[in-house]
Amino acid sequence: MNPILPGLRGPAGLKDLDLDQLLKLCAELREDIISTVSRTGGHLGASLGVVELTVALHRVFDSPRDKLVWDVGHQAYVHKLLTGRRDRFDTLRLRDGLSGFPKRTESEHDMFGAGHASTAVSAALGYALARDALGEDHAVVAVVGDGALTGGLAFEGLNNAGQANTDLLVVLNDNKMSISPNVGAISRYLTLITSDDFYTRFEAEVWKLLGVMPKGRKAQILAGRIKEGLKSLIVPTILFEELGFRYFGPIDGHDLPTVLRTLEQVRKIRGPVLVHAVTEKGKGYAFAEQDDQRYHGVGAFDKAEGIKVKTPAVPSWTAVFGETLTELALRDRRIHGITAAMPSGTGIDRLQLDLPDRAWDVGIAEAHAVTFAAGLACRGLRPVCAIYSTFLQRALDQIIHDVALQKLPVIFAIDRAGLVGEDGPTHHGVFDLTFLRMVPGMVVMAPSDENELRRMLATALARDDGPTALRYPRGNAVGVPLDAELTPLAIGRARTLRTGDNLALLAIGSLVQPARKAADVLARQGIEAELVDMRFVKPLDDGLLADIWQRHRLVVTVEENVLAGGFGAAVLEWAQRHAAAENPHVVCLGIPDCFQDQASRNELLGMLGLDADGIARSAAAALERLDLSGRAQSAS
Amino acid sequence: MNPILPGLRGPAGLKDLDLDQLLKLCAELREDIISTVSRTGGHLGASLGVVELTVALHRVFDSPRDKLVWDVGHQAYVHKLLTGRRDRFDTLRLRDGLSGFPKRTESEHDMFGAGHASTAVSAALGYALARDALGEDHAVVAVVGDGALTGGLAFEGLNNAGQANTDLLVVLNDNKMSISPNVGAISRYLTLITSDDFYTRFEAEVWKLLGVMPKGRKAQILAGRIKEGLKSLIVPTILFEELGFRYFGPIDGHDLPTVLRTLEQVRKIRGPVLVHAVTEKGKGYAFAEQDDQRYHGVGAFDKAEGIKVKTPAVPSWTAVFGETLTELALRDRRIHGITAAMPSGTGIDRLQLDLPDRAWDVGIAEAHAVTFAAGLACRGLRPVCAIYSTFLQRALDQIIHDVALQKLPVIFAIDRAGLVGEDGPTHHGVFDLTFLRMVPGMVVMAPSDENELRRMLATALARDDGPTALRYPRGNAVGVPLDAELTPLAIGRARTLRTGDNLALLAIGSLVQPARKAADVLARQGIEAELVDMRFVKPLDDGLLADIWQRHRLVVTVEENVLAGGFGAAVLEWAQRHAAAENPHVVCLGIPDCFQDQASRNELLGMLGLDADGIARSAAAALERLDLSGRAQSAS
Repeated sequence: MNPILPGLRGPAGLKDLDLDQLLKLCAELREDIISTVSRTGGHLGASLGVVELTVALHRVFDSPRDKLVWDVGHQAYVHKLLTGRRDRFDTLRLRDGLSGFPKRTESEHDMFGAGHASTAVSAALGYALARDALGEDHAVVAVVGDGALTGGLAFEGLNNAGQANTDLLVVLNDNKMSISPNVGAISRYLTLITSDDFYTRFEAEVWKLLGVMPKGRKAQILAGRIKEGLKSLIVPTILFEELGFRYFGPIDGHDLPTVLRTLEQVRKIRGPVLVHAVTEKGKGYAFAEQDDQRYHGVGAFDKAEGIKVKTPAVPSWTAVFGETLTELALRDRRIHGITAAMPSGTGIDRLQLDLPDRAWDVGIAEAHAVTFAAGLACRGLRPVCAIYSTFLQRALDQIIHDVALQKLPVIFAIDRAGLVGEDGPTHHGVFDLTFLRMVPGMVVMAPSDENELRRMLATALARDDGPTALRYPRGNAVGVPLDAELTPLAIGRARTLRTGDNLALLAIGSLVQPARKAADVLARQGIEAELVDMRFVKPLDDGLLADIWQRHRLVVTVEENVLAGGFGAAVLEWAQRHAAAENPHVVCLGIPDCFQDQASRNELLGMLGLDADGIARSAAAALERLDLSGRAQSAS
Repeated sequence: MNPILPGLRGPAGLKDLDLDQLLKLCAELREDIISTVSRTGGHLGASLGVVELTVALHRVFDSPRDKLVWDVGHQAYVHKLLTGRRDRFDTLRLRDGLSGFPKRTESEHDMFGAGHASTAVSAALGYALARDALGEDHAVVAVVGDGALTGGLAFEGLNNAGQANTDLLVVLNDNKMSISPNVGAISRYLTLITSDDFYTRFEAEVWKLLGVMPKGRKAQILAGRIKEGLKSLIVPTILFEELGFRYFGPIDGHDLPTVLRTLEQVRKIRGPVLVHAVTEKGKGYAFAEQDDQRYHGVGAFDKAEGIKVKTPAVPSWTAVFGETLTELALRDRRIHGITAAMPSGTGIDRLQLDLPDRAWDVGIAEAHAVTFAAGLACRGLRPVCAIYSTFLQRALDQIIHDVALQKLPVIFAIDRAGLVGEDGPTHHGVFDLTFLRMVPGMVVMAPSDENELRRMLATALARDDGPTALRYPRGNAVGVPLDAELTPLAIGRARTLRTGDNLALLAIGSLVQPARKAADVLARQGIEAELVDMRFVKPLDDGLLADIWQRHRLVVTVEENVLAGGFGAAVLEWAQRHAAAENPHVVCLGIPDCFQDQASRNELLGMLGLDADGIARSAAAALERLDLSGRAQSAS
């Protein structure tokens, strides 16, 4: 047989294939995904787990007329390959290439962008009720991972959808493992109903009751019938049925005929329906089957050899955080670490190794993570919430209402802050400086190197009168030597890294190093820049700024955050409050007011003029404009 | 018998009372609450519903050693009366008085501040695990309303708590009605298990199965036993048991002996336990029992007469919004209204009257409300999410990731924006300008009067390339005449209300009217202020600002939002981007960087210098400083 995938005319082409061809197609899809992701990096395990499910969905339903809404889009690679994007699949996650997630502007088959989890049921309910309002007739299907079910948003969606008088199919892709092993009662429940334990427990209870019955063959047969009848009544439909869904499953999500038959069957059913498919993450690639955590999101690797762990010459920010947290926690019993389903991504796995009783993984539940931390802090503990910047957006109200308003010393260790690169606009963490510094009582720091990160964590832990945030980027740290002693910083004190008379560069966090190089570039042009590592976005260093304001006529702020309300805005606000008769001219460099696409982090920084050359160019240009206008003024 | 409440020495005093005395105490508590709230205003119904429950909790548990965590704190008045705050109860919700919610700084018995719903289980889990970590021994009790269960955070908390190996009691105060009638499957589930329907349905199923059994008296008895046995197996514990809780109930929450007995019983049980108490909101006050929606949160009223509805001379902002939305929706079939459990608070109830099929109440589920709206918008509909500013904080990530990133035309009608007055710091909506204007593609408006509100809603609906927000305050609008025609505004165009040469006042939204009066005050001092109603926080009016920048040496911005990253900051950022050779001096007036206490809105505006006099005073002072420094400069 010739390969099928290259000749497939979109998802409609699936209708013409017989079962053997469909199975062959599944093998080809796996091969394509493994080959491509081993070159580009990406989310491997999730997509390998939904090959049969996706083929079956596109065979049974009619996309884009029928609406397939993917939750946690990194399971959507198969969907992309089946919907006309195979020829561009090798551009996955690259600059100008295919997105790693569904993206509405990329294909008419992508109904809803989803880089953050737990959104699909809510979005699909919108699609379904819009269909009803418009008098249209098509199916709406949400494909939700079991991990996403721990998110409150998914529950809010199910709670509303289950009651809505509308046709909606939710396919639960249950791979027992979203990113890291699942947590919480729902997870346990799913395990229970897909294991024999539930039946066993139930059986025992029934037999206990039936023990009151007369013995004898007839009675035993009767008892058996009652048992079976009642089992179908209560097993395992309970939870989802109570939420208003008709439940089908669990089915083997890799058994294509079963999946096809089930979807055909439920397609005709009115109202909210849930199909529970059990899948294996990484299915069909032995390395990934054996270690699905490691193969969840990967960089490029050798397909035949699997991922080789190399200790990088320079440790990642995450690793330094994890080590430092553990070091501090071993000394200070009050410290607890909290992660929302990202133990390895945030470094909380390091704490889990040494102090498992003080490392909490709450699942995809950032809001709960923060309010739970607030509860711990009420009793004098020092919870450290390690959450990616982009996901912390889910906990803004909890940060304000539960933590800051009560002046609780919760610490936010914000990983992946700034531009994250290949994961693109859904994952860039470029708003946190704005939404954190507006919160009264919050101290906001950003380290310029890993030694600073260590000191900032110690600084946060030394505070007891309110919350503290530190944010650091994705990737490897700077490679500086670490102090032997972990000394806290003075709150709100910046440090001057270089002196210079021509202008002042005020840089924060991840852009201090590029700003340092920019100062070198400027020096070669004869421009001497004073460089300050501001360390704190809040509170700002009043004394240092006052001094700068006296001595300089040009100040350039540099940050890896949106300009709207960010660090530069904080400096402008400071200047407004402390206005002197003559203010220096201020230029703010940062991320402009539009969403940033995917590309490597370095590419993005270059495109935005936030690398060393870009910063130097902007500073020199501002100085030139100032000279010109100064000359113009003198001349006038 | 003498009154009991006045002599009660804190909650410990309850241990000495017999049942008769406790019942008398309940009556006294009801009387106190009705008397006080009829004078001060406040949340009436919820607290009347938990009188027996609260008395029983304080009798059985030992606060503050045992930790009582109240969810949606407006049910906590009885708790306040029992914990030493009776003598100050008549200061409820007044300036410097008792808070309407639990407040940690107010009493050692208040474990967790709770103005926003659904936080208690997460916070209580923090308390419980902190206790375990510290090797302490006390009870932790979360009291949660049924309405709060629709919130994703509550589910995240239950999902984690149910699995945690810790002792935690959740008391579900099920009054069938949080604020407005509950929605969603959970609500239906609770109704089902507290009604006879469930038993009836179950019974029918069992009888159907048992129909296979031989007839006869013995068999019937047997069948009955089986039925009872199985009922206890599966009714009504299912949902909560699956979440990992041992379930007790439903019990009558007004039957004090039963409540006492149940709490005594569950107190000794290890692990997560849930007690389901059914209560009646407004219990014991006939008016409130009959109309619990109206008596949820009230202003002052005549105790004997109940609330008299008066049509105010000037309509509320909410009413104008509701009327306008309905008027527009009757003409435009694309318009759908969405509220998160606040139909009357947001004016969506007005739409429900005329177009019930296009008014969605999703329950306390703001995140879902926004993602659901995104789904509707994907199909070309024009969803309008009407949400209080303070609660919109719960949907930041959905606004960014689900709406703005996909450029979906979702409209945010943000009520209670700015200082809300008596509800205090948990409810002030003073961050939205900051967290909305940082979002790329978002248009942010604030009307200065109700005619502007109407035009802004029409403006938002005319946009189809992204999200739009309009925010307006609590209370009555201005009382201006309404245009006959509803004309949209030009996006990003401000309007000049008054000309003047001495300085420019740039005001936004709710503070345009005070700024207008401030201009009058200044005029009487010989200072002529130009006054601009900016209308748009984003995008700003480039042309108008450039003109102001040319003509003025002092610009004063005025907003009812935190200064950090708010409207004034946007103006500063604009000035930085468009820097001319000579900038005017800019003074930003707004809410400083601390949480604002409770007081009437006018008191708060006065205290913050944001009323007419305060604005005039600040403007005049800035002008004087400028003159002095100008003179100093000329002299030097």
